[in-house]
Amino acid sequence: MMKPIGHFLWVIAEGYIPGQSFSQQKEFISHETACILNVCDKEAHIEITVYFSDREPAGPYKVNVPPKRTIHLRYNDLNVPEMIPRDTDYSSVISSDVPVIVQHTRLDSRRPELSLFSTIAYHNNL
Amino acid sequence: MMKPIGHFLWVIAEGYIPGQSFSQQKEFISHETACILNVCDKEAHIEITVYFSDREPAGPYKVNVPPKRTIHLRYNDLNVPEMIPRDTDYSSVISSDVPVIVQHTRLDSRRPELSLFSTIAYHNNL
Amino acid sequence: MMKPIGHFLWVIAEGYIPGQSFSQQKEFISHETACILNVCDKEAHIEITVYFSDREPAGPYKVNVPPKRTIHLRYNDLNVPEMIPRDTDYSSVISSDVPVIVQHTRLDSRRPELSLFSTIAYHNNL
Amino acid sequence: MMKPIGHFLWVIAEGYIPGQSFSQQKEFISHETACILNVCDKEAHIEITVYFSDREPAGPYKVNVPPKRTIHLRYNDLNVPEMIPRDTDYSSVISSDVPVIVQHTRLDSRRPELSLFSTIAYHNNL
Repeated sequence: MMKPIGHFLWVIAEGYIPGQSFSQQKEFISHETACILNVCDKEAHIEITVYFSDREPAGPYKVNVPPKRTIHLRYNDLNVPEMIPRDTDYSSVISSDVPVIVQHTRLDSRRPELSLFSTIAYHNNL
Repeated sequence: MMKPIGHFLWVIAEGYIPGQSFSQQKEFISHETACILNVCDKEAHIEITVYFSDREPAGPYKVNVPPKRTIHLRYNDLNVPEMIPRDTDYSSVISSDVPVIVQHTRLDSRRPELSLFSTIAYHNNL
Repeated sequence: MMKPIGHFLWVIAEGYIPGQSFSQQKEFISHETACILNVCDKEAHIEITVYFSDREPAGPYKVNVPPKRTIHLRYNDLNVPEMIPRDTDYSSVISSDVPVIVQHTRLDSRRPELSLFSTIAYHNNL
Repeated sequence: MMKPIGHFLWVIAEGYIPGQSFSQQKEFISHETACILNVCDKEAHIEITVYFSDREPAGPYKVNVPPKRTIHLRYNDLNVPEMIPRDTDYSSVISSDVPVIVQHTRLDSRRPELSLFSTIAYHNNL
């Protein structure tokens, strides 16, 4: 049995979904992803709050990660309680009831020459 | 009420604003950004000091982040006390009076095929 | 004699090997790499477990890093106990019996304009 | 007077200088950089050891960072005690006698469409 790995609270200060994509094929659409790994034996109940520069935060967005599973969650797909606006600066805080690990990735395909980045998210040690 | 998340002191050791851009559309101009999230209920007063390889540091540059807001601050836009020179190596130290989270992103558009990177900044645990 | 540097347990929450590459030259094939540095005087015995979104984890994959050596391990080359599927979301947990340092890199060459990213992996302080 | 920020020991597990570049203009030559910031009032004496997959480590490479200065050190320029080979996997350990902050960046210009990445390096808390 794997012992828990990770943290309960993560932050991705960068956030921006380009509104354009050179292709409408799913893997080439401009997107932002939070990769969330749950190595625990219990399901993780995740809540995401999205912060903006000029309005109140949105959320919480809720998603579950089954035990011993990973999800690569596209912010593009978050629709409840509201869609994440495109071409808009945001940040997100991700909390979980079991420890998880979060990595942040963007694919920018505004131009056909893709640009990708990825970074481990910030985790609070408290 | 969200309890504070983050740190008071952050460092971005990489810094370089390419002097060229293939387009003058704002979103495609080569730029460096510090994404700063403040989840607190109090405004964050940020001070940025910029270090160079061959001269005394510049700053402090001052910017505020309202409670529960994020800013994606373009170093290109910092003009007081002085502009950040283009095509010049620098580093920056970001301090805040409330805990914040900082992520560093560059868009390099010297060529029409964009290149992007992003990384969580360094935070001092002291 | 160098004293140990690093951690025993690392996580890369992002994972995805693009199934296409514009070239079949080894350095241009789309790949994911875990760069693992062992500065110790003893060999590191590494075990990698790979997590998916919709099935049980795979592994452990075993690899050794000799003392004072680095390996840039391509996930593309992992075949025992099973190949890592292409075009599939995954995450990985890397454990070692001596402290090591892990950095994660992807080269995406689905299009001839390469896209690269790299980030320090997550390490568990426990 | 700024109090010390940073750590004494840093690791960049990824390392690879592409042997080709589409241009010989300095800023477009494929390169790897360690951005090192010293906010202290004393000069930092840096020693870099480079690890390989199939031979003994090289170094130490020595470089100084004046007080309140940053250097963006190109690994391409390290020649004493020996050049860093191109197209070769390596890792590096960076130690300093005063606390510094290190960020790792690569520009890959094997193709005219640049690819860039950057990540905070690993720092040892011990």
